[in-house]
Amino acid sequence: MVVEILAVGTELLLGNIANTNAQYLSRRCAALGFSVYHHTVVGDNEKRMTEAILMALDRSDVVILTGGLGPTEDDMTKEVCAKVMGFSMEEDARTRKRISAYFKLAKRKNITANNWKQAVVPVGAEVLDNDNGTAPGLILKKDGKTAILLPGPPGELIPLFSEKAEPYLRTLQPDTIYSKMVKVCGIGESRAETMILDLIDAQTNPTLATYAKTGEVHLRITARAEDEAEGKRLVKPVVKELKKRFGIHVYSTKEEEELEDVVVRLLKKRGLKAVTAESMTGGLVAERLVNVAGASECFPEGFVTYSDQAKRKALGVKKKILKRYGAVSEETAVQMAEGGARSAGADACIAVTGFAGPEDSPEEPKGLTYISCYLEGRVTVEKFRFTGNRRKIREQAAVQALDLLRRRILEQDRHE
Amino acid sequence: MVVEILAVGTELLLGNIANTNAQYLSRRCAALGFSVYHHTVVGDNEKRMTEAILMALDRSDVVILTGGLGPTEDDMTKEVCAKVMGFSMEEDARTRKRISAYFKLAKRKNITANNWKQAVVPVGAEVLDNDNGTAPGLILKKDGKTAILLPGPPGELIPLFSEKAEPYLRTLQPDTIYSKMVKVCGIGESRAETMILDLIDAQTNPTLATYAKTGEVHLRITARAEDEAEGKRLVKPVVKELKKRFGIHVYSTKEEEELEDVVVRLLKKRGLKAVTAESMTGGLVAERLVNVAGASECFPEGFVTYSDQAKRKALGVKKKILKRYGAVSEETAVQMAEGGARSAGADACIAVTGFAGPEDSPEEPKGLTYISCYLEGRVTVEKFRFTGNRRKIREQAAVQALDLLRRRILEQDRHE
Repeated sequence: MVVEILAVGTELLLGNIANTNAQYLSRRCAALGFSVYHHTVVGDNEKRMTEAILMALDRSDVVILTGGLGPTEDDMTKEVCAKVMGFSMEEDARTRKRISAYFKLAKRKNITANNWKQAVVPVGAEVLDNDNGTAPGLILKKDGKTAILLPGPPGELIPLFSEKAEPYLRTLQPDTIYSKMVKVCGIGESRAETMILDLIDAQTNPTLATYAKTGEVHLRITARAEDEAEGKRLVKPVVKELKKRFGIHVYSTKEEEELEDVVVRLLKKRGLKAVTAESMTGGLVAERLVNVAGASECFPEGFVTYSDQAKRKALGVKKKILKRYGAVSEETAVQMAEGGARSAGADACIAVTGFAGPEDSPEEPKGLTYISCYLEGRVTVEKFRFTGNRRKIREQAAVQALDLLRRRILEQDRHE
Repeated sequence: MVVEILAVGTELLLGNIANTNAQYLSRRCAALGFSVYHHTVVGDNEKRMTEAILMALDRSDVVILTGGLGPTEDDMTKEVCAKVMGFSMEEDARTRKRISAYFKLAKRKNITANNWKQAVVPVGAEVLDNDNGTAPGLILKKDGKTAILLPGPPGELIPLFSEKAEPYLRTLQPDTIYSKMVKVCGIGESRAETMILDLIDAQTNPTLATYAKTGEVHLRITARAEDEAEGKRLVKPVVKELKKRFGIHVYSTKEEEELEDVVVRLLKKRGLKAVTAESMTGGLVAERLVNVAGASECFPEGFVTYSDQAKRKALGVKKKILKRYGAVSEETAVQMAEGGARSAGADACIAVTGFAGPEDSPEEPKGLTYISCYLEGRVTVEKFRFTGNRRKIREQAAVQALDLLRRRILEQDRHE
């Protein structure tokens, strides 16, 4: 079954944003076992949009349209698509009520007539309630073809697709596609690929694909099967083999679980309180922990000690250590980790100190980073040399810092 | 004159990568004064690629094709495009020599017959030497239509386009396009649009367009002119009018300058040291400041005080304040800002406390946020009610926090 992605938006054609929606939707469609042969982008122009929709409906079974569902005159995806497919329009009472409630919550008073345009839907369409914005998603079915309309902002599109459009797509795909993700941290993509080259070369069903993410490699195992039980049976030995090869570097096999989720889960399970002591990453590690719902149970506070003085005052790093070894050193990293835990009375502390650039400095080459982890009386430190620009270096450091704490907790479990 | 972008690559259709090449090329084409009405992505499939090239050449003047120029059998963009346009192929001696030299430089020994495929070009095509890879770029002209073929890796495409394809495109478009950005913070997109509706409705040359970014609105003024001087002359009065209407909410008119760049610039210029005291944002404000090169001059440290105890200990928030008003309150925000500045001996402190969800709690509705700013003895506080998911709420809060500090510094200047 063939799915096609049609994005509507002048901001895409002007190059103001990249079409990350098409990327997200393609990845999800591939995981569901659909084939995607075309992406198209057109602007808010009736003629070109009509041509694009007609062509897409002609050559594909399902067309996912994104963008152009806003309240202004320019936004016409819903109207054009309904016209092309021969649907009339009417106001949907439930959507009007939902938009009303949304505005009330946002304390918006200046609601204009235009806003109610978003409550008008094609007669007979399935309405997908949008919890993160006013424009509803829509599913239109006619003559064996389906159009799925989703709002353009990723913060609205992603939850609407995964929670409401995906369950519908699953009903169209009779083969079960069962897929499992093995998430690896601390091993580069090319090294990871080399470690599983024999598995990749031998793949038929299930298939095995690798995806690089900052500081991580994700391995997706996908089986096509008659039912979920068969899918699971096919995928299981591959997951087992990958876990064996990557060992402690596998941090999760759950689709939605991120590295910080695992760290928070481990901390909570063991009743540990952890803090952060960050120089180069400037709050990035703390920020990732705080993004986990319920992090307050195990993450009471963080220190962003950018200056030497802050490292001394907030973390008790010794002046002579800073002077002798410098702020970017193994010794400073260790004192930051110990001092952070001591100062906050915590069980664990992750510390990061490094040099993110933009230029090499005379003392420290760009990318040089020390990450130290204090955990219940024991402290370790690791040295890294990250590449890339300032932001990329800092993001990689944050990933490795979270991963060091994760590995330390797991290793401690083994020793006990 | 109309340009169209046609990207070739299965990795795009599988969602492994986003089509950032289309974004880059669109932005450049817009800056050169070309109209882009379509982006298309197809895979390495002869039938679909042929259809896509025929359609693009029919409706556009110039088609830029990216990807599918590699040495393997799968790569067929050059061959299909030449066939569609009626070009025969032959080996290009200069390209063969260049590829040979490239392999020598890269110390590659295992050169296969396939590699020489990349030296074969359409007869009569203009060959663009690729300094960063083996595949050459190509310009094919026939019957008033042009196809420009560029390799897919951005590290090869970007220099090849800007150094070799862009000069050619400039000969097709004699007008100069001059554009300027006005960046606004603290005003929602729909309100911003309402404030300039008359300008948008009246636009011909220059044109005015708005783009929403988390917590910000960007306004782009673009003029078509005979030369840069005329472009500047056309754009200037519009920039002036926008500055008048949005006043202090305009934070920059520089293309590459972000909100945190402005904050760091203002702090440095006035010799101020600022710190952060974050609860809900968990380090996000600090992280954005640290991302500015040279932030260490004005940002010595930050406090991530997620627990009440940390708010008391690190920032000196009074127990009775937390008890009476709660952690998410005007009173707590103010004490966090004052305490952060006092504890770090800083001139300024931005404090954020709020409730980011995921669910409404009995005490605080999701999205409720207080942002306080201490600056040289005076403290102010603002209340917000953000909408969206946990991440979106926190990102909006970080933007407003940075902006509050920016406005406070500017207002102080006026009072002096």
